[in-house]
Amino acid sequence: MTHKVAILGASGYTGAELVRLIAQHPTIEIAALSAERKAGMTMAEVFPHLRHLELPRLCKIGEIDFSGIDLCFCALPHKTSQEVIAALPQDLKIVDLSADFRLRDPAEYEKWYGNPHAALAQQKEAVYGLSEFYREEIKSARLVAGTGCNAATGQFALRPLIAAGVIDLDDIILDLKCAVSGAGRSLKENLLHAELSEGYHGYAVGGTHRHLGEFDQEFSKIAGRPVKVQFTPHLVPANRGILATVYVKGDAQAIHDTFAKAYADEPFIELLPIGEAPSTRHIRGSNFCHIGVAADRIEGRTIVIAALDNLTKGSSGQALQNANLMLGEEETTGLMMAPLFP
Amino acid sequence: MTHKVAILGASGYTGAELVRLIAQHPTIEIAALSAERKAGMTMAEVFPHLRHLELPRLCKIGEIDFSGIDLCFCALPHKTSQEVIAALPQDLKIVDLSADFRLRDPAEYEKWYGNPHAALAQQKEAVYGLSEFYREEIKSARLVAGTGCNAATGQFALRPLIAAGVIDLDDIILDLKCAVSGAGRSLKENLLHAELSEGYHGYAVGGTHRHLGEFDQEFSKIAGRPVKVQFTPHLVPANRGILATVYVKGDAQAIHDTFAKAYADEPFIELLPIGEAPSTRHIRGSNFCHIGVAADRIEGRTIVIAALDNLTKGSSGQALQNANLMLGEEETTGLMMAPLFP
Amino acid sequence: MTHKVAILGASGYTGAELVRLIAQHPTIEIAALSAERKAGMTMAEVFPHLRHLELPRLCKIGEIDFSGIDLCFCALPHKTSQEVIAALPQDLKIVDLSADFRLRDPAEYEKWYGNPHAALAQQKEAVYGLSEFYREEIKSARLVAGTGCNAATGQFALRPLIAAGVIDLDDIILDLKCAVSGAGRSLKENLLHAELSEGYHGYAVGGTHRHLGEFDQEFSKIAGRPVKVQFTPHLVPANRGILATVYVKGDAQAIHDTFAKAYADEPFIELLPIGEAPSTRHIRGSNFCHIGVAADRIEGRTIVIAALDNLTKGSSGQALQNANLMLGEEETTGLMMAPLFP
Amino acid sequence: MTHKVAILGASGYTGAELVRLIAQHPTIEIAALSAERKAGMTMAEVFPHLRHLELPRLCKIGEIDFSGIDLCFCALPHKTSQEVIAALPQDLKIVDLSADFRLRDPAEYEKWYGNPHAALAQQKEAVYGLSEFYREEIKSARLVAGTGCNAATGQFALRPLIAAGVIDLDDIILDLKCAVSGAGRSLKENLLHAELSEGYHGYAVGGTHRHLGEFDQEFSKIAGRPVKVQFTPHLVPANRGILATVYVKGDAQAIHDTFAKAYADEPFIELLPIGEAPSTRHIRGSNFCHIGVAADRIEGRTIVIAALDNLTKGSSGQALQNANLMLGEEETTGLMMAPLFP
Repeated sequence: MTHKVAILGASGYTGAELVRLIAQHPTIEIAALSAERKAGMTMAEVFPHLRHLELPRLCKIGEIDFSGIDLCFCALPHKTSQEVIAALPQDLKIVDLSADFRLRDPAEYEKWYGNPHAALAQQKEAVYGLSEFYREEIKSARLVAGTGCNAATGQFALRPLIAAGVIDLDDIILDLKCAVSGAGRSLKENLLHAELSEGYHGYAVGGTHRHLGEFDQEFSKIAGRPVKVQFTPHLVPANRGILATVYVKGDAQAIHDTFAKAYADEPFIELLPIGEAPSTRHIRGSNFCHIGVAADRIEGRTIVIAALDNLTKGSSGQALQNANLMLGEEETTGLMMAPLFP
Repeated sequence: MTHKVAILGASGYTGAELVRLIAQHPTIEIAALSAERKAGMTMAEVFPHLRHLELPRLCKIGEIDFSGIDLCFCALPHKTSQEVIAALPQDLKIVDLSADFRLRDPAEYEKWYGNPHAALAQQKEAVYGLSEFYREEIKSARLVAGTGCNAATGQFALRPLIAAGVIDLDDIILDLKCAVSGAGRSLKENLLHAELSEGYHGYAVGGTHRHLGEFDQEFSKIAGRPVKVQFTPHLVPANRGILATVYVKGDAQAIHDTFAKAYADEPFIELLPIGEAPSTRHIRGSNFCHIGVAADRIEGRTIVIAALDNLTKGSSGQALQNANLMLGEEETTGLMMAPLFP
Repeated sequence: MTHKVAILGASGYTGAELVRLIAQHPTIEIAALSAERKAGMTMAEVFPHLRHLELPRLCKIGEIDFSGIDLCFCALPHKTSQEVIAALPQDLKIVDLSADFRLRDPAEYEKWYGNPHAALAQQKEAVYGLSEFYREEIKSARLVAGTGCNAATGQFALRPLIAAGVIDLDDIILDLKCAVSGAGRSLKENLLHAELSEGYHGYAVGGTHRHLGEFDQEFSKIAGRPVKVQFTPHLVPANRGILATVYVKGDAQAIHDTFAKAYADEPFIELLPIGEAPSTRHIRGSNFCHIGVAADRIEGRTIVIAALDNLTKGSSGQALQNANLMLGEEETTGLMMAPLFP
Repeated sequence: MTHKVAILGASGYTGAELVRLIAQHPTIEIAALSAERKAGMTMAEVFPHLRHLELPRLCKIGEIDFSGIDLCFCALPHKTSQEVIAALPQDLKIVDLSADFRLRDPAEYEKWYGNPHAALAQQKEAVYGLSEFYREEIKSARLVAGTGCNAATGQFALRPLIAAGVIDLDDIILDLKCAVSGAGRSLKENLLHAELSEGYHGYAVGGTHRHLGEFDQEFSKIAGRPVKVQFTPHLVPANRGILATVYVKGDAQAIHDTFAKAYADEPFIELLPIGEAPSTRHIRGSNFCHIGVAADRIEGRTIVIAALDNLTKGSSGQALQNANLMLGEEETTGLMMAPLFP
């Protein structure tokens, strides 16, 4: 049985990545693609790398007949997304890739994003889309909120440890190194090749990055008490990849054992032998997350490093994984491609 | 029905790329992987990006039982390849990725490669592996010689034009821009990131690159008289991709029409609208070749630009395409994945 | 004696490069810096890499008192530049880095740039700023028109050959590979790191690039009859550098000899031994141009390759070289720094 | 007065960088250049970017007449360096760029480097070469030990804070992002462009990097009690640059004030306004170190970020700064060039 899907906001990187993935999916078919400012164009014009595919022409959202659509991916900017989703049919299955439905508490949303939430009804029913930890809720959800890409990486590196109580909850530092496609196709000077390719730097330094809202929400929920982490992202001259170097206080072997147990049956999480460090070149273009654990020379301190592709496992791959769950398909369908190396 | 294959020389980039592709192939199974110096290691140790796959441990060629193998990919260095292939069972189907069986004339081989050919019997039966132009011969071949990656790119840009007689055969210039993975995993100073990433340059300037042997052989054969092209490759700071800018004397519209006709039914060749130029970012990681045609401001001169991924369409993808033909499978099986962008 | 200069349009890459160079110049002092939209900001805010320098605050052009200025660099966009220069004091020495005063024939200007020239009086007196070939005129010029960076590279590779009559004038092909800083700090999708770093492509294919106006003008002038070259630029994933691969018909040794004679006393032109190919990594950040010559395997065909840094020798370094000449300074002052490698 | 210097080990990146810098120095002249395996070659053959300079031909160390040499830079591999230096004239001024004389305690040397020290006499007299903190000792030293490039970066970010007692000494984490030229010109797979350019990763994870020996020695000396930091370096796809993100417990304003006071008169240290983060693109090719300070959202936690060019301020620039001090020159001579951006 084939499922028909629409992708709203198909002219950005996450939209293109969804098309790339779904093109290989045996039972999902793209029925509609929207892009307000590029409506009327073909995908081949916007993304020549997709020119071999037969795809619907880009249209405006208002032109889509949702009656035949089984599921809708929303790859729209945040704030726009909530407005659009509030107006969509209320029985349509939705995977939202924006930040709009990630935070359970509307006050937290407003604190991090600066505007009151405009789709509170939908926000209430949304399920947090970290597939490995919300699998059952996602299966029966109508609206799934894809996680932030940094937020996903940090959670893969920390959730089992917080749940198992093997680390000090008051001294967690996440130093993230993010590739540039995570910033999207927006035109900013520091994203230009000339400025980025031989330059890297921290940003949102001091705990101002919005993905902290997700960390606070999820880690506190698992711990059963407030947990606040330190989180400093850095922009590095690569296209795809997030590498989270996480500094924790806890025993390395216990931490490794905890991961081994937590991720034993996870198809997309690869735990490296203790002492080995993952690299973004080994996960590029794939839905895999590699996790490494090493004891520091200082007793009782451990470094956890997690690597994933921000556009795949961190965003569109996660979205398809969730769609599979929502549509009753095998979770891994269309997602087992090997990374592209070199 | 599942076909069992062996990959000899699996620890190089083309070997890894074959594994990446075959991992997604529904009817081909990897039964053996060899790497003389890394025998005993797992593929996950050599290529951590493949760690999610269940693969045979690397072994020496002598340890492989070829009786159960349906087809063997040889991704060995040239000269080694001919020696190995001469010693393999003579009824084993083989796709060779080296340069050893590309040239029909042993004297030409010796001229370009510097040593007499050591497997003349096998050389005689080898079929040149440019799938789009030797499809029928490949279907019934025992031994197929994969083409050079530069040679493939140049031929896609020129064969139909030479065959149709729409260009001047005595004034053809190929200016190629090659990404660095084409140089393989060899350790040379000019392949270091520090030296290449902000540096690009011509090499083998003046007509000394060995792929000229293939151009001479194939273009002269099509034309029915000697054809010699000028060919200057350049190394550019990218990982995957070959972009051939070809300067010819001929009418742009006639050239575009000729391509349109020649490639009308080809699943992997995408002809762009006249005037558009392809980019390597639109074919990366895929088996597609994009071709563009533009008229120069000087009457009667035309620029043809072809772009493909040297490791996929230029090497391992082509090898799998040929294996599909030899094994009676659909030619495109396992090869229709979309390019990775960005 | 110290010369006071102003830089108009100091917030772009060529403006920043001028400041970098002049900061090391013993007898030139920056008295004013303009940037209309960033007026009021410090250079450290716009270009943090210059924060160690004491520099005037950015202002609007109208705020500059030109009475104390000895020479003015105009690093403004073309079309704006001519309007500004028409309104500047008519005895002020000017080095213009834009395209506005390069073409001698106003009709040619209009043909390539699409608008009638708005400063015809100034255009008449302008001297073409290729220092090595217009040295004497530049010394006594009031207004010098800096050349296009591609145009400079192509001319270094061809002028002596055309002048000496050692190549066929009707069959010259320039295949250029340009780094991205040549596109300036403009915000375009194809200049984003995510799109460029693993992608390269031709542009302005077919003879539509505006620098052809300069080639036509200069080459025809030298030859004493119309000369039209083929010119295809390519954008490659590097920040600085232009590499021109020039295909000519002529004898390689005669060509090498011609260069040796023509450039014997040139401080910035380095002729490589015959057969060697230059690389952009060997000229980065410097005012040098490396030139290589190689015979093709086809008799009578030769490849000339020239490499320079588009922002230095191709633009701001050339501008300073010209300013030195205009101010009576040694031509090389402040320009002999070695390239940055790696 | 001109000082004559020799550079031993001139065929590596730090040797080339020394030549680049000294070529602009008004009173230092290069009298000899050694490279054992490349003896007999010209520098232009080894480093074509230096071909415009008149330089002595590369020779073996044994061929150098040290009687006319005022100062010798040793850019040799560690272990070799100590053997060579033990055999040099004992009154020759030396700046050593290797790791051999950095650690005061021979036992610590053996612990981190694995071999007993072979030049204990020289080791005793060596002065640690962090110019800003050992200025007076360096002025009168015969043998100065250049610091590790990571070690320099970390110390600029921490020494004043430890000295002033404004941070918790038991909870210091240095997360470093290092560009690839720091690994030198050695041929390793993970330094290849194909593997590094789209891949980044941690290495020496867990406190095994040798520069920890320097941190331990220096920080403990300043504090007057043992101080052990956590230090995780990462290799990122850039050529030049080190970015140290340092996590400390202390008040951001007090930390910023401490830096402001400590570095008020330092010509090469630029303290950014509080809250601003430095980028490696703003120090490339220069001798400057940029330092930023930001308060974390968690009270009492502060992030310090320091950026410098590993080959310049982290190595050869520091060496020249020390040579200036040793030779009685102005400390900044030949070192005030602006960074290369973009």
